[in-house]
Amino acid sequence: MVIEKRFMEEAIKEARAALDAGEVPVGAVVVKDGAVVSRARNRVEETGDPSRHAEIEALKLASRKLGTRYLNDCALYVTLEPCPMCAGACVNFRIGAAVFGAFDKNAGALGSKTDLGSGVFGKEIPAFGGIMEDECVELLSACFKDLR
Amino acid sequence: MVIEKRFMEEAIKEARAALDAGEVPVGAVVVKDGAVVSRARNRVEETGDPSRHAEIEALKLASRKLGTRYLNDCALYVTLEPCPMCAGACVNFRIGAAVFGAFDKNAGALGSKTDLGSGVFGKEIPAFGGIMEDECVELLSACFKDLR
Repeated sequence: MVIEKRFMEEAIKEARAALDAGEVPVGAVVVKDGAVVSRARNRVEETGDPSRHAEIEALKLASRKLGTRYLNDCALYVTLEPCPMCAGACVNFRIGAAVFGAFDKNAGALGSKTDLGSGVFGKEIPAFGGIMEDECVELLSACFKDLR
Repeated sequence: MVIEKRFMEEAIKEARAALDAGEVPVGAVVVKDGAVVSRARNRVEETGDPSRHAEIEALKLASRKLGTRYLNDCALYVTLEPCPMCAGACVNFRIGAAVFGAFDKNAGALGSKTDLGSGVFGKEIPAFGGIMEDECVELLSACFKDLR
């Protein structure tokens, strides 16, 4: 697969919208055949529901839009390395690949802290981290600076 | 915490309802102060959405009902060991403990294949497997026998 910066830019737009809404700024898009299928942002604060991460929202929406349970032909672009819940969702939705911006040393589950996409859970997920990393980290830093 | 069989019986009721509806029979309940707060079953077939596992549904519902984001004072009872997505959700919802029936050698993420509740992800989840294991395994076997 070819990693395209323009899709991470779309994910970053979602992350910015999350920041503006008082959320931890994480955004995600699902891409198929060179086009964005779905886009979502973190909605944990808005909903009070810790499962409303950008990735799981984007995966659900893409699956609904495409009318297919599995997303083997799609790639997920997300501004932050997925947590175990979201990496596990990537496995369950059989996502074709995952591209992320910032690495998460504490909770990253596609390589940093563990790798749920290694194939051990029945689905190997090629993951590419550090794409537009500076922009993604900057957004996250802005958020945590505001919190202090 | 005291593990109470009656709560696993409630989870098994949900799993049976899932089986009757043509789903892989997994059921879950969330318990607080000796009472069931929420109950849910697998709805993947009905919805075509691979994220609609019993556990994540029960956690979301309990959080909504209690009006609290975190479920430290609650226990999850589920008929099958959670997958990575659901074990990751247990971490995100800060569930107090997890009790499961059947072990999942292939995808179990609370001890069998990996342990996402070991504390490595910032939340230690005491997990107790094999509670009413025979009944839970029998239900799963019934499902996979039907599929053959």
